[in-house]
Amino acid sequence: MTRAAEQAILDAHFMARALELARKGHYTTHPNPRVGCVIVRDGQIVGEGFHERAGEPHAEVHALRAAGELARGATAYVTLEPCSHHGRTPPCADALVTAGVARVVAAMRDPNPQVAGRGLQRLSDAGIATESGVLEVEARQLNQGFLKRMEHGLPFVRVKLAMSLDGRTAMESGESQWITGPAARSAVQRLRAQAAVVLTGADTVLADGARLTVRADELGLDAEQTALAMSRPPLRVLIDGRLRVPLDAPFFKAGPALVATCMAVEEQYANGPECLIVPGDDGQVDLHQLLIELANRGVNEVLVEAGPRLAGAFAQLGLVDEFVIFIAGKFLGSSARPLLDWPLAYMKDAPELKITEIRAVGDDWRVTATPVVSASV
Amino acid sequence: MTRAAEQAILDAHFMARALELARKGHYTTHPNPRVGCVIVRDGQIVGEGFHERAGEPHAEVHALRAAGELARGATAYVTLEPCSHHGRTPPCADALVTAGVARVVAAMRDPNPQVAGRGLQRLSDAGIATESGVLEVEARQLNQGFLKRMEHGLPFVRVKLAMSLDGRTAMESGESQWITGPAARSAVQRLRAQAAVVLTGADTVLADGARLTVRADELGLDAEQTALAMSRPPLRVLIDGRLRVPLDAPFFKAGPALVATCMAVEEQYANGPECLIVPGDDGQVDLHQLLIELANRGVNEVLVEAGPRLAGAFAQLGLVDEFVIFIAGKFLGSSARPLLDWPLAYMKDAPELKITEIRAVGDDWRVTATPVVSASV
Repeated sequence: MTRAAEQAILDAHFMARALELARKGHYTTHPNPRVGCVIVRDGQIVGEGFHERAGEPHAEVHALRAAGELARGATAYVTLEPCSHHGRTPPCADALVTAGVARVVAAMRDPNPQVAGRGLQRLSDAGIATESGVLEVEARQLNQGFLKRMEHGLPFVRVKLAMSLDGRTAMESGESQWITGPAARSAVQRLRAQAAVVLTGADTVLADGARLTVRADELGLDAEQTALAMSRPPLRVLIDGRLRVPLDAPFFKAGPALVATCMAVEEQYANGPECLIVPGDDGQVDLHQLLIELANRGVNEVLVEAGPRLAGAFAQLGLVDEFVIFIAGKFLGSSARPLLDWPLAYMKDAPELKITEIRAVGDDWRVTATPVVSASV
Repeated sequence: MTRAAEQAILDAHFMARALELARKGHYTTHPNPRVGCVIVRDGQIVGEGFHERAGEPHAEVHALRAAGELARGATAYVTLEPCSHHGRTPPCADALVTAGVARVVAAMRDPNPQVAGRGLQRLSDAGIATESGVLEVEARQLNQGFLKRMEHGLPFVRVKLAMSLDGRTAMESGESQWITGPAARSAVQRLRAQAAVVLTGADTVLADGARLTVRADELGLDAEQTALAMSRPPLRVLIDGRLRVPLDAPFFKAGPALVATCMAVEEQYANGPECLIVPGDDGQVDLHQLLIELANRGVNEVLVEAGPRLAGAFAQLGLVDEFVIFIAGKFLGSSARPLLDWPLAYMKDAPELKITEIRAVGDDWRVTATPVVSASV
């Protein structure tokens, strides 16, 4: 094996560890990206760190502190290009230079226009060897929301659905409780916790008394991760074009929320939750505009938990990045409610999806699927 | 490790090989069960065999022939209790006695009332050590159809469905071609080939021009298995209560078929396919009676490939042993046709299923699910 091939294997090995560290920030870093860092000297890890939350030190700073003087001449592995700008903390590129590291390996460039290659350039200018693109696919996966926002000015939208094996979400009457089991509900809790926003519609809140909160005892995480998740609950956003949900609904009693509507806010909402007026042409809330607003507020990931109508509207508008569908082993029958309200007449109009994963979750199954954008769009 | 524990491991090892051999008869043994046999002497396999088709020698006979004089004092592993009755071939228990084997290990007893323990008894009476129950779960899995027929007087009914991710089978107009990809279609070909009967309804035959044949080039099997499969094509059964399908339909032109109807057979069918008159109380074909008739003809496995109405009828009557659902990565939308015509009003009536497997098949996914029979039934 050549020296270069050996180095590539070692680089991947240490980057995998840096990614593992980055995942510890799964529930807390937003609006910042999840980042991990490992400092390696003579083949030994001498410092590790990850970014925990915005305003606190970046991964590199934690790792450099842990390494101390051992950082001099070492290699730093970082899952995202070190920042070069003064944000709420000083630039990490400068910290790496000051610490005297000899080499910096990044999993990917930072798409943030304030960085975008300038971090690596800064290092390079200081005589540090730099490299990028090690385990890049995994690194991008880790920060889908941050990347979507930086690259498209929109949050990553994940639509969670729960259906029977015959594709139904509720009986015709609306009866729908407990389609899936406790393991699936716990998985949904974690999806909520990792999102910056959990979004729903008035139908769901009115019909089910839904609160869409994160509950510590249902997360199924260890104490450390539970504490992190509970320290940074998602903002709950209600789409209620005609302000049908009363302020004494369980949803509003469960904590802060944002209401997206198309009406001028009426008096009874004056002392209530914050309202965002985003009217669309069709008398409905403009979902695209709402997502832009949320991205402008730093929202990386949105979890949509809504009925067939609102979920169908997001899907029809092409605003969905990922569907997470929990499938319960039962038939609800042909008169039950559909997965998405989305009438289509011809096969040629049927949207294609790529099923990326199917996994058992307790007695239920979880399907992850991403829309396939056709070449003609 | 004790001597007994060692022997149990060796027994499982050789039985696994016998099961592997039995699977070679996957497409041909019906109405007989799939059976494999291995003769082992001093820890070495000295003879192997499997049953290929009814009327031809049983697995034990093939294996004993291969072993020759080495069978004396050897152990015979057989996936089903050796037969004790004179059928189209002489009893295998006698052949094992004559060959002088010292020990016979069976995976399971033969549920055939003509055998049912008498095979092992015959061996035991001749001073041969016998044992049963080694890899029994796997052995039962191999012969689900034979066991169902022997134990319940009905064939094992597998319902194949193909749906979109939102649980739809076709557009409202009926447009439905090519929901799933080539790998899934090949898997369906193999399901057809392993069945004794492929069953469909008049709607499917009229709307899609379906022929439900097995096609050698689509099986995706090696030459040997393809030849075996093609040598024993399933009987195609059409349920056509009112004899709506004309005799010049592609279905009838594609080979022999059986028509199940509730009408007296009209003149135009006189020189056509065989007809079975099984009227039900509701003016429809009595599906339960039809299955009994098929079992009486030695049918072990039925594959139902039908539209939502007929598939739904089988499901509602509790006649389905297994659903095999191919899921394509697309949405057909909320106006598209349902998986099963089976209207249900309340969640408590929603039938439970156990999803036993989900597996990728090309770009599609295959879900296998079995109805959960509630304790109150």
